[in-house]
Amino acid sequence: MSGNTFGKLFTVTTFGESHGLALGAIIDGCPPGIELSEEDLQLDLDRRKPGTSRYTTQRKEADQVKILSGVFEGKTTGTPIGLLIENTDQRSKDYGKIKDQFRPAHADYTYMQKYGIRDYRGGGRSSARETAMRVAAGAVAKKVLANLWGIKIRGYLSQLGPIKAELLDWNEVEQNPFFCPDKSKVPEMEAYMQALNKEGNSVGAKITVVAENMIPGLGEPVFDRIDADLAHALMGINAVKGVEIGAGFACVAQKGTEHRDEITPEGFKSNQAGGVLGGISTGQDLIASLALKPTSSLRIPGQSVDIEGNPVEVITTGRHDPCVGIRATPIAEAMMALVILDHALRNRGQNGHVQSGVPIIPGSIPGQIGS
Amino acid sequence: MSGNTFGKLFTVTTFGESHGLALGAIIDGCPPGIELSEEDLQLDLDRRKPGTSRYTTQRKEADQVKILSGVFEGKTTGTPIGLLIENTDQRSKDYGKIKDQFRPAHADYTYMQKYGIRDYRGGGRSSARETAMRVAAGAVAKKVLANLWGIKIRGYLSQLGPIKAELLDWNEVEQNPFFCPDKSKVPEMEAYMQALNKEGNSVGAKITVVAENMIPGLGEPVFDRIDADLAHALMGINAVKGVEIGAGFACVAQKGTEHRDEITPEGFKSNQAGGVLGGISTGQDLIASLALKPTSSLRIPGQSVDIEGNPVEVITTGRHDPCVGIRATPIAEAMMALVILDHALRNRGQNGHVQSGVPIIPGSIPGQIGS
Amino acid sequence: MSGNTFGKLFTVTTFGESHGLALGAIIDGCPPGIELSEEDLQLDLDRRKPGTSRYTTQRKEADQVKILSGVFEGKTTGTPIGLLIENTDQRSKDYGKIKDQFRPAHADYTYMQKYGIRDYRGGGRSSARETAMRVAAGAVAKKVLANLWGIKIRGYLSQLGPIKAELLDWNEVEQNPFFCPDKSKVPEMEAYMQALNKEGNSVGAKITVVAENMIPGLGEPVFDRIDADLAHALMGINAVKGVEIGAGFACVAQKGTEHRDEITPEGFKSNQAGGVLGGISTGQDLIASLALKPTSSLRIPGQSVDIEGNPVEVITTGRHDPCVGIRATPIAEAMMALVILDHALRNRGQNGHVQSGVPIIPGSIPGQIGS
Amino acid sequence: MSGNTFGKLFTVTTFGESHGLALGAIIDGCPPGIELSEEDLQLDLDRRKPGTSRYTTQRKEADQVKILSGVFEGKTTGTPIGLLIENTDQRSKDYGKIKDQFRPAHADYTYMQKYGIRDYRGGGRSSARETAMRVAAGAVAKKVLANLWGIKIRGYLSQLGPIKAELLDWNEVEQNPFFCPDKSKVPEMEAYMQALNKEGNSVGAKITVVAENMIPGLGEPVFDRIDADLAHALMGINAVKGVEIGAGFACVAQKGTEHRDEITPEGFKSNQAGGVLGGISTGQDLIASLALKPTSSLRIPGQSVDIEGNPVEVITTGRHDPCVGIRATPIAEAMMALVILDHALRNRGQNGHVQSGVPIIPGSIPGQIGS
Repeated sequence: MSGNTFGKLFTVTTFGESHGLALGAIIDGCPPGIELSEEDLQLDLDRRKPGTSRYTTQRKEADQVKILSGVFEGKTTGTPIGLLIENTDQRSKDYGKIKDQFRPAHADYTYMQKYGIRDYRGGGRSSARETAMRVAAGAVAKKVLANLWGIKIRGYLSQLGPIKAELLDWNEVEQNPFFCPDKSKVPEMEAYMQALNKEGNSVGAKITVVAENMIPGLGEPVFDRIDADLAHALMGINAVKGVEIGAGFACVAQKGTEHRDEITPEGFKSNQAGGVLGGISTGQDLIASLALKPTSSLRIPGQSVDIEGNPVEVITTGRHDPCVGIRATPIAEAMMALVILDHALRNRGQNGHVQSGVPIIPGSIPGQIGS
Repeated sequence: MSGNTFGKLFTVTTFGESHGLALGAIIDGCPPGIELSEEDLQLDLDRRKPGTSRYTTQRKEADQVKILSGVFEGKTTGTPIGLLIENTDQRSKDYGKIKDQFRPAHADYTYMQKYGIRDYRGGGRSSARETAMRVAAGAVAKKVLANLWGIKIRGYLSQLGPIKAELLDWNEVEQNPFFCPDKSKVPEMEAYMQALNKEGNSVGAKITVVAENMIPGLGEPVFDRIDADLAHALMGINAVKGVEIGAGFACVAQKGTEHRDEITPEGFKSNQAGGVLGGISTGQDLIASLALKPTSSLRIPGQSVDIEGNPVEVITTGRHDPCVGIRATPIAEAMMALVILDHALRNRGQNGHVQSGVPIIPGSIPGQIGS
Repeated sequence: MSGNTFGKLFTVTTFGESHGLALGAIIDGCPPGIELSEEDLQLDLDRRKPGTSRYTTQRKEADQVKILSGVFEGKTTGTPIGLLIENTDQRSKDYGKIKDQFRPAHADYTYMQKYGIRDYRGGGRSSARETAMRVAAGAVAKKVLANLWGIKIRGYLSQLGPIKAELLDWNEVEQNPFFCPDKSKVPEMEAYMQALNKEGNSVGAKITVVAENMIPGLGEPVFDRIDADLAHALMGINAVKGVEIGAGFACVAQKGTEHRDEITPEGFKSNQAGGVLGGISTGQDLIASLALKPTSSLRIPGQSVDIEGNPVEVITTGRHDPCVGIRATPIAEAMMALVILDHALRNRGQNGHVQSGVPIIPGSIPGQIGS
Repeated sequence: MSGNTFGKLFTVTTFGESHGLALGAIIDGCPPGIELSEEDLQLDLDRRKPGTSRYTTQRKEADQVKILSGVFEGKTTGTPIGLLIENTDQRSKDYGKIKDQFRPAHADYTYMQKYGIRDYRGGGRSSARETAMRVAAGAVAKKVLANLWGIKIRGYLSQLGPIKAELLDWNEVEQNPFFCPDKSKVPEMEAYMQALNKEGNSVGAKITVVAENMIPGLGEPVFDRIDADLAHALMGINAVKGVEIGAGFACVAQKGTEHRDEITPEGFKSNQAGGVLGGISTGQDLIASLALKPTSSLRIPGQSVDIEGNPVEVITTGRHDPCVGIRATPIAEAMMALVILDHALRNRGQNGHVQSGVPIIPGSIPGQIGS
């Protein structure tokens, strides 16, 4: 299968360039009989939408999604769901000057080497604009997961440049433009972003996503473990350079006694594993984090070459996010939802008749580290 | 496709339980005309083999691989390559006592919930023994990559518990039992491991793998980026909890001017990107790191439950690696090789006629950070 | 992968119901640098379009296709190509009466049993209207095949009900509303169709498709043989009940001396094989035939049941093709093109470096049977 | 996915050359908890085995299959099932003379053009010997289908050269060496085969396979219809040149009133559709037929070329089936079983929660045409 299709049973295929006519997606394999409307998708699209705060790109896109098929009388029919968002604010003249240059740390050079041709308008297919369709598709997956199994997926910004944020309050996440779960850190973040804007620089970020009310048994070892597929999904988001499950890289310096999540009849005593053992979900919260690099579209000049290999100095003046990580929370949630739903269907396909007879251990005991 | 097949054009499907009769693999889509012998595979298998140092499990396995098909008169024929390793040292009586218990942080519980049945002997399919077939298949991929494009893949231990190691000398890596590239750190690691053994505990590790002499243009955005597929491959190795490409999680606190790898006609000035931009290889070294958790098979008792949900105390007395990360280097190399070869073939399929006309920028300028 | 994606490297995913807002497709894996315009697609769409003769349904659809992405400055970019056709002539009131009935020999009953819900307007997803997107995608494949390898794909009606037609003249095929290659049979077909219309009945048809200027080596045994994938492609067209390659079912009564295509340095002496040996193309013309059943939408009443299982009498009064086979020629060509291109890319992926050293045997010697 | 893997959720990957060390397969995605033993597989393998009658090749192969993994304490575990058959009677000297020649109507030439290299011993990978593994894997699928849904799959020889056989008695099928369901035709077949042997010629055959006690709802339109996937499966068997579902090519001359299977609350009135409507199973018997060409390995000389393109005369003296169709019945059954099980799991994955509320119409009313 080609690279623009995601998933195996619940699949999402997308198209669309930053400054093309439209973005679109086809969702295939959606369970039938689920109530679904354009509003369900719009909610998450609006959370991702550019131009909503002064800390994100000022491109104005309505990001109005249309459902073209697969839903009848308000319910999914099991046939493919066609989605479409027309591009409205293309302003392609902004980008003309980079036609013959390779912006450092952008995909310009690699697309050209791969395909011998590229749509240079606004990054073309490599633009983060493409993620709108992931968010729309992810919203469908979230709806199905909630409806069939009660699974809930949420995310938050766990670090903005040097500023870390703890998951203190889920309710706070939607109350500030950073998806920051710690209200006390918001002013610090605002000040940091203003200084960054003045400097003309950008910064990285870390996002954490969590699936609650998970069911055990999801994941297809030895290769399509649920954590491996999550890593594929999250590393495949623009600008992501690292993915962790549960304790993540902290496990390198941990001892076995520290990392192993002991089990009691009342629940797991901790969740260092992030809800996965042997590539299969335990039923605890599924927890993943991702690192997003600082965008490379800067007003500060950088060295590069043009399409003939001559040295040039590149300055980016368009509308860009100084921290692409800020808007990444809904995208990461969407990708997690796609992975979990795909695995839920794959698991039902192979094991739908299974009754293990083994009591299900409740999630983590509240208050435990890593829970 | 089911979960035991890896790759899309160059595919590897594996089978085998820790204490079953044999492990096996089928490699499909291998380019024809490549010289290949069992010795090519055995070399890497011996590097992974248990029982080679006192820092790894004392299980004795010859891990003698047989090529059953797909090679004729010393060359690959393009038809599937069947591989087989018979299990010799099964000693299954060691494991009988865990038949009805779920070892903490092991896959016992999740396999049982998923399938309603499990082969409890030595972890069954969830045992790290399964990785022998990855190494064998990876050795085939390495051979093809070297033969057709001159690509070379190597790895090293970059951290053992608290002890970090820099990539000082590739030659040193094969000279010590840790795959440590810094000779000066080896005594410290030995001392650490001895203390750990005495304590009956285990520890995590970090591995770094590098593909040199890469070609640009590999990777299939937007979902099957080469970094995303690497993340899938590496996170899918037993015990892995995190994957980084290039700068990895360090990018969270980096500024854009720091992270972006500027380009000159002589080469990239750095390699924070780890050889990937927009999900497509740049031609620089492809660099990935992975975090391996400490094994949970400890002599120190841990709380758990049995298959009826009753609390039990679990002690593992079998032969286990106190640091599973030590033997992970050849496995990580193998997985990287599988990903790169699969992408090289996919790229050739779609773009085999492309001549970009754009000069290829040399790899990183020597001595630069991250190169 | 779910059922609405076709192909492995060159993939086509479609959506759309007969009376929904639009039909759409995403083509992924298209080789870059190929000149492509909407006109290229429109040509074949117009050949398939309903309402063009009095022997086909009188539904009026402009079938105007838009390319929404993947083409830049007139050339394919290698990124996904989004296609859209808006439905204009929906007239859904025609279909209201079949809401609660299962038309005999239609997909009404099976969709309902599978999904528990169905879009009953005009057959919903099971309508032949869906094939418009196959034709559009097939036109892209035809263009690429012609451009990169000079392969040409054409089809004709080889039988209409009891009337057989020989391939006398390719030029004649586009000169009559039946795609009939024998001018002398056209009046007979016209008379037959008029009588059929008067009777209120329908009839089956047989279509033959041919790929000329083929290249040897396409096909991926043992399962994805090119003939097997052709069979999948052609049997997957609405109303198809049989597929033949080359001699097809005639081979049952043939002897070995009769069927085997002997080889000379000047070419194969015949083409009973239809251009495939061992599932791999020989380089001769690739030839396949398909049987299309008579449509079941008749004015003549038929027995059936409603959604509660009660007996009903069904009469179909809408606009329907009395012989769905007539319009199937462009659809069959399209599916053949998709198969060949997918295989050409898969073959290039695995074997792009191969130089067999074996002289290529020319196609069939002109005038031979089965050529 | 590469060409030696069959299926999407229940997958079978095979390896092995005619005169290599062994044949093998990996079954992945098998539902757990199903009783399975080597005897279950051996039964069908023995039905396919060469050398069992004087009408098939005299090659002697024990075809003794070993299950190497995926079964524990007599039940499938859900992990991959590794299968192995060692080749014992290789006698490779028989084939040395064809090393540099291309046998007419064999895959010699196409393998060489594709891969630039081939294992010429006994046809290598293109030998029908490869089908042993299909039969073994199909036996697993049959067991699962019977166990989980009560589905039963059987086949018979419906035509041998010019001699047709009606399905008079399933019990007769296993009582003669032809899988002929009409006892009265057996002497005629025997006489025909003896004359054919004397002549040194071969002949084609037609096989029909039937799945009884089917469940409705299997099939994934619009591309992966169950009939399309059956066509893929059956056309992918060595020597097959045509596939029909239900009425097959007879539908070309049928009228709509003749072909449509009317429905009553007591059952379908006929089964022209062969158990599929709109690509989804109706619950009636699923019926498919396939045409097998006469083998081209003849004692009667044929014209061909050698690897340098020079004309040669080819005579095949090895052990060959004068009618490869005779042994094809168990192979066709196996492929049908693989298709149905794969679709049953795919359907359960997407639609496992569906309750259509629509009464299930019983299968065909006994005695009806086509039932």
